Amino acid sequence: MSGLSRRDMLRSAGAGGALLASGAVASPLGGTRMLPPELPRDRFAAAVGELRAIVGEEWVFADEATTISYKKSFIPDLRGEHVPSGAVAPRSVDEVQAILKVANTYKLPLWPVSTGHNMGYGMATPASSGQMILDLKRMNRILEFDADLGTVLVEPGVTYQQLNDYIEENDLPFWLDVPTVGPIVSLVGNTLERGVGYTPYGDHFFMQCGMEVCLADGTLLKTGMGSVRNSNTWQAFKWGYGPYLDGIFTQSNFGVVTKLGMWLMPRPPVYKPFVVRSANLEDVAKVTDAIRPFRMNNLIPNGVLMMGALYQLAMFHRRHEIWEEDTPIPDEVLKAFAAKNGLGMWNTYFALYGTEEIIAATEPILRSAFAATGGEVLTEAEMAGNPWFEHHRTLMRGGMTLEEIGLVRWRGAGGAVAFAPVAPAKGAETFGQTALAKEIMEKWGFDYAPAYAVGGRELHHIIFLMFDKGSDEESARAEQCMEEMVTRFGEKGWCAYRSSVSTMDLVAQQYGAENRDVNARLKQALDPNHIIAPGKQGIA
Amino acid sequence: MSGLSRRDMLRSAGAGGALLASGAVASPLGGTRMLPPELPRDRFAAAVGELRAIVGEEWVFADEATTISYKKSFIPDLRGEHVPSGAVAPRSVDEVQAILKVANTYKLPLWPVSTGHNMGYGMATPASSGQMILDLKRMNRILEFDADLGTVLVEPGVTYQQLNDYIEENDLPFWLDVPTVGPIVSLVGNTLERGVGYTPYGDHFFMQCGMEVCLADGTLLKTGMGSVRNSNTWQAFKWGYGPYLDGIFTQSNFGVVTKLGMWLMPRPPVYKPFVVRSANLEDVAKVTDAIRPFRMNNLIPNGVLMMGALYQLAMFHRRHEIWEEDTPIPDEVLKAFAAKNGLGMWNTYFALYGTEEIIAATEPILRSAFAATGGEVLTEAEMAGNPWFEHHRTLMRGGMTLEEIGLVRWRGAGGAVAFAPVAPAKGAETFGQTALAKEIMEKWGFDYAPAYAVGGRELHHIIFLMFDKGSDEESARAEQCMEEMVTRFGEKGWCAYRSSVSTMDLVAQQYGAENRDVNARLKQALDPNHIIAPGKQGIA
Repeated sequence: MSGLSRRDMLRSAGAGGALLASGAVASPLGGTRMLPPELPRDRFAAAVGELRAIVGEEWVFADEATTISYKKSFIPDLRGEHVPSGAVAPRSVDEVQAILKVANTYKLPLWPVSTGHNMGYGMATPASSGQMILDLKRMNRILEFDADLGTVLVEPGVTYQQLNDYIEENDLPFWLDVPTVGPIVSLVGNTLERGVGYTPYGDHFFMQCGMEVCLADGTLLKTGMGSVRNSNTWQAFKWGYGPYLDGIFTQSNFGVVTKLGMWLMPRPPVYKPFVVRSANLEDVAKVTDAIRPFRMNNLIPNGVLMMGALYQLAMFHRRHEIWEEDTPIPDEVLKAFAAKNGLGMWNTYFALYGTEEIIAATEPILRSAFAATGGEVLTEAEMAGNPWFEHHRTLMRGGMTLEEIGLVRWRGAGGAVAFAPVAPAKGAETFGQTALAKEIMEKWGFDYAPAYAVGGRELHHIIFLMFDKGSDEESARAEQCMEEMVTRFGEKGWCAYRSSVSTMDLVAQQYGAENRDVNARLKQALDPNHIIAPGKQGIA
Repeated sequence: MSGLSRRDMLRSAGAGGALLASGAVASPLGGTRMLPPELPRDRFAAAVGELRAIVGEEWVFADEATTISYKKSFIPDLRGEHVPSGAVAPRSVDEVQAILKVANTYKLPLWPVSTGHNMGYGMATPASSGQMILDLKRMNRILEFDADLGTVLVEPGVTYQQLNDYIEENDLPFWLDVPTVGPIVSLVGNTLERGVGYTPYGDHFFMQCGMEVCLADGTLLKTGMGSVRNSNTWQAFKWGYGPYLDGIFTQSNFGVVTKLGMWLMPRPPVYKPFVVRSANLEDVAKVTDAIRPFRMNNLIPNGVLMMGALYQLAMFHRRHEIWEEDTPIPDEVLKAFAAKNGLGMWNTYFALYGTEEIIAATEPILRSAFAATGGEVLTEAEMAGNPWFEHHRTLMRGGMTLEEIGLVRWRGAGGAVAFAPVAPAKGAETFGQTALAKEIMEKWGFDYAPAYAVGGRELHHIIFLMFDKGSDEESARAEQCMEEMVTRFGEKGWCAYRSSVSTMDLVAQQYGAENRDVNARLKQALDPNHIIAPGKQGIA
């Protein structure tokens, strides 16, 4: 592992001082764990003992050998700011409640994860070192499936693959909506982070319905219709009565979500995927303006992805195949390599779902609008077998693929961090964002690997910074680049909809003092000892 | 006004004792206002003085003559439990902040309303007597309109009529989605109550994006992207970063919403309304099961209304035209009168929006499914000129109509209260709800006037209890009937999505102790003096 040599280097260079402060625990493997600040070693050990009594010896991880998977992430962490103290993996809500009780007693901070595959954002690692990972992957039951309503109630450990298998085994007429690397990702985790996907159900939080939340004091809250006796409406009606609470448990640290309801898309009779191939980087503006009205009037019902050539190529190629220099890949080189692979500088994927007749009535309207942007409108007829077309054909029907993991192999030892600023779905915005992102990425010597996920009225610009995590120099540069990205985009009003653990606080500052104040008040009301995920989205 | 004689009767009968307790203020008009409990008269007068200094003499209403409009409602209130102490009408956010400061100083409870036309649920009247109405109708600016994105930012006093006029004057290519009696209703008020309408944008809270909330301490929170400097994404992106907060300010008393963003539906090239006429009350089950898959796969994109014959007829007829007896109208009499008016026992309205070609490709699928229920599928070709078809043709394109006000004239002096339990969108549910509602309504001597609003996976059953508010006996019976409805529906898990001020607490109990506990904690965190709308949705 490159991680080892990097840590060794840090230590010998003295840069790892922070790691070896009072909380650090030396490990025979040469890595470190970090204890929670202000929790003495013997108190930590006592807490671990109590946790073992709850979940069993084998489900508490508090040494270097067993915690190593929890500290693995693709983002830079040169100063060891995101190193857990260990992990505990309950298998039931009762155990979660008991663990929270221990955490309150010892002031042990817990960082809940579902499956811990928050890929571009820090995987399972906590916002600050010393937190113990509350790993919910063993709670992986599909609790209910209503085949009339297309609703499901699942535990945090349920992956998209698992639910996909369940649907296939039972031949249920529904499709999932998956995020990137869906098979290994938790529905609950992705939805709570407000992730997005590729089908008409691409806005996952929009399609979420009802949750069970374990509060810090053990109170078990069922939102919406969940607490109504004899009700069968928990997964059917989102809003319930009185204040709608679900939202405050997303991207938050106000409770531990232990069950989540989701709506699933009915399988359509016919599905037809499209790609619009655009030759030039500056076409991004025209394509954006062409997409917007169709997302607003729902002629394009799904989450449209405008994929930049470099983001696409990085899935299946390594950088040196395209460019041997350290300098950013010149546009012309990229364009030529993309063309050889059947790709444009932008490749815009959308799909139609319905009957042959409805699709036939809709298709000409879309073709004509995209042709007017100068793009080529292509379907299976021209693109079948093209690996990128096939990749998105799979995604836009909620299929299983891990191909995007390829991105972390782009450059040296796996390193990647995502920045995802939002903007109105207007060409002037994507034009400006692309120019600014390219400028900053190239200034720091990185390749600009973009995608835009276009919702109804806004878009997420997903910028994947791929670097060599085996190189400290490159890791440091990646960190600085990301900080400049967040800061300079923020100055233009383009803030991230989500953040890696490394910039959670920086982003939170951009959302204003009143927002932080209200979040702080809610935190105090619901978790007065601040034991759940302190620092999550900048909330202490 | 019938209200006067009722109050006189109450007083002479001694039943009005509660009205004349310490807080009651005798009025030369023979009505009453109620002071807030535990706020002595001189303190109240001092508070009123300070409010006058803020908004001007003419915008504080604290005597019988000027407050009479605020206490007018259609629901029964025999014990004077929903009588305001007066009203104050600011014209700016600054004034709202100043008013809240006074309210905190004097512990003066404020009941915010936008335009106060919460028709079946108590109009402007508060959950408990003595609250002062915070009337926001003077804050009626359309602050922003983005004609590319179809988004708008409005103040609470903006009515659907006002926004409709703005759209027409500026020839903007968008449609509204209106609730019942839309022209006089506030967008903000209806959306905060999570009201529903008739177009594809029928779930108003779904289509809401960004709000400004004045907290009890004067903190001005802009949710979502609203606090990001230089951002133009406030009305484009719903979720923002960190906990999604908007939901906790709907159906709540955690703050005063002073601005609200909404998405508007692009005007389609072609619009085609349909009605399915069903002969028998028990057809409700088959029709429900026919609607559900089309709402889920979006072949029917709009909020479908299944309107019962009696609800329909009451818009344009008075009861005695159909039935002279006090006993509930027999089904056969109702059926015959409905048939004479071109109506069935259920009249199910939906619409298609798009191009001629897309509608032509979709229509046969719907026709065949609804024909299989035994219903007649009718369009403009057969129904043009029918007042009920025209009414829904207007509503399903977001047009302006006040015709539903007719309902309060059904029986004697205007009295009506709505009960709206939710259920999964399944035929067995509507069949069971209709049977239970009819049984209870008829037991108490009222006519069962139903509508079902069918969302994607759930439905709201809207039961309008129409009674003679001029009769104390009938008012008391209406109250008892409503209590039995809420209770017995609740036992089956069918709880209201919203409530009149008279049953807010009763409904809240059905949503469980944990829910109430969390709401109480949030209230304490955001409004520690409990000055904003105490009792709203059962939250002290």
